[in-house]
Amino acid sequence: MVYKRIAFDGEALLSDAPRETLAALGVTCFAGGPERDALFVSENPAAVDAAFEAGFDCALALWRGTPARHARATHYLREPYDLATLFTRREAPYESLEWLQTAMEMQFIAQAGLTYSKDPYDLERFDRLRELAAQMLARGSGLPMKTVRDVFLCETGYQTPKIDTRAAIVEDGRILLVEENTGLWALPGGWMDVDTTISRNTAKEAFEEAGLNVLPRRLIALQEHNLHNTPTLAIGIVKIFVLCERISGAFQANFETVRSGFFAPDALPPLAVSKTTEAQVRMCLAAAADEHWRPLFD
Amino acid sequence: MVYKRIAFDGEALLSDAPRETLAALGVTCFAGGPERDALFVSENPAAVDAAFEAGFDCALALWRGTPARHARATHYLREPYDLATLFTRREAPYESLEWLQTAMEMQFIAQAGLTYSKDPYDLERFDRLRELAAQMLARGSGLPMKTVRDVFLCETGYQTPKIDTRAAIVEDGRILLVEENTGLWALPGGWMDVDTTISRNTAKEAFEEAGLNVLPRRLIALQEHNLHNTPTLAIGIVKIFVLCERISGAFQANFETVRSGFFAPDALPPLAVSKTTEAQVRMCLAAAADEHWRPLFD
Repeated sequence: MVYKRIAFDGEALLSDAPRETLAALGVTCFAGGPERDALFVSENPAAVDAAFEAGFDCALALWRGTPARHARATHYLREPYDLATLFTRREAPYESLEWLQTAMEMQFIAQAGLTYSKDPYDLERFDRLRELAAQMLARGSGLPMKTVRDVFLCETGYQTPKIDTRAAIVEDGRILLVEENTGLWALPGGWMDVDTTISRNTAKEAFEEAGLNVLPRRLIALQEHNLHNTPTLAIGIVKIFVLCERISGAFQANFETVRSGFFAPDALPPLAVSKTTEAQVRMCLAAAADEHWRPLFD
Repeated sequence: MVYKRIAFDGEALLSDAPRETLAALGVTCFAGGPERDALFVSENPAAVDAAFEAGFDCALALWRGTPARHARATHYLREPYDLATLFTRREAPYESLEWLQTAMEMQFIAQAGLTYSKDPYDLERFDRLRELAAQMLARGSGLPMKTVRDVFLCETGYQTPKIDTRAAIVEDGRILLVEENTGLWALPGGWMDVDTTISRNTAKEAFEEAGLNVLPRRLIALQEHNLHNTPTLAIGIVKIFVLCERISGAFQANFETVRSGFFAPDALPPLAVSKTTEAQVRMCLAAAADEHWRPLFD
């Protein structure tokens, strides 16, 4: 994504844009028609289709209920804030890691085959395919075969992404972060347990890591780790961001985090970017400030 | 949940309620104060707290921005439609299946221990605990030990719920369902692949099972299988419902489904309730009809 300017088809649409966030990303917004070196955004399918036909990069704004049918576009934007995500999402997380993507897909196919196939010869083939995927991963990552087999191969049943929940607790435009033993900061959160709910897991992690009793109130976003966080991992993870209200409590010493604090987006401490990026913090703050926020996904 | 009546604290709040859905569930709504045999719903924390103190079942309505702090309530409702979910959510999915819940938790603890522990003695203990969980599951379910070990035990890494995506395609108040080989119907959908996004997975399943090209537009809900669907399973599943717009295509013969059709909520075909319940269909229709719908979770 290399645009530094966005042309909005009319003042009304321009006023929907998350302009502060875009400005922080170095992107200028203005009302106008398609231009070279600008992304053209419109809610009018005919205008977007014409711009696409003429070779302009263009996005169809869907958030006012525009039907997508019959309009070709470079991007389809469900919510205004998707404009910001366009600039922060990783374009090609597997670039120069093609071997990783191939190994993941081999493992995934083998796993599904082992789960559903009844043919003993096919089962043998899938088993061998899984072994090959592990070898590939071990070679590419330099990890010992045993480690790879343990963390990557032994899943059974159809394999789906793992779920991680993150609590966004926002007060006076500042967001609560916790400092880990590593000296890096993140939103309180972690793996979702199998026998719980998204709310309960979000609240449990906020209590364990920040000492706070919170009430989960609204979904902010569902984001795939490899599209938003680094490093690229050999597993899929969906991160669920939940806006929470602080009810009571205070930070207490625990074995996961060393302290907590509220931070403004322009004065963030060093972040544990595999868990929380600056873009994710800004997204949570934007969601907290907008009563009509509808959750993002992807 | 045994209420047949809901008392709303004021006409404005009453007008927010999904009254048609509640009526279909046999629940009467009216404006009024706390009463025996009625659920009292208010956005006023003091009123809810007082009702709670006086022993009435009461719910705090949070959707207009009411802070939850300092109000005790029987239920906290994030969105108006949560009122309907109160009546359709399963209260105690593990009732008379306590052994299942215990086996799941044993397996979950063992799994986490095997993932994080470095102590060889602890690792041995966790390994043995996992075996015990499998034995318990085999005894309780009557399945052979090998099957149980395959589908339940062999996960590694921290175990989180699996993800299932479902496409809700709504036109003229009717919803698209697909018929499976079993003769039962469900929303098109399935397990989420590890290397994809929620949108792509939702669209892929709609194409495979219904032959349609769709554009995923809005989240409807994230629901835990065991709280909304039957039978109760030994794994956690988060079902992600996504409202989609049909772009093109038509049903084509495939090996998963035999036909598709649009159905009104009062004329549904027999449903594959492990995948889609009537309550879930009604929820998707309500979401489609409401431009301001905010996704539910839990």
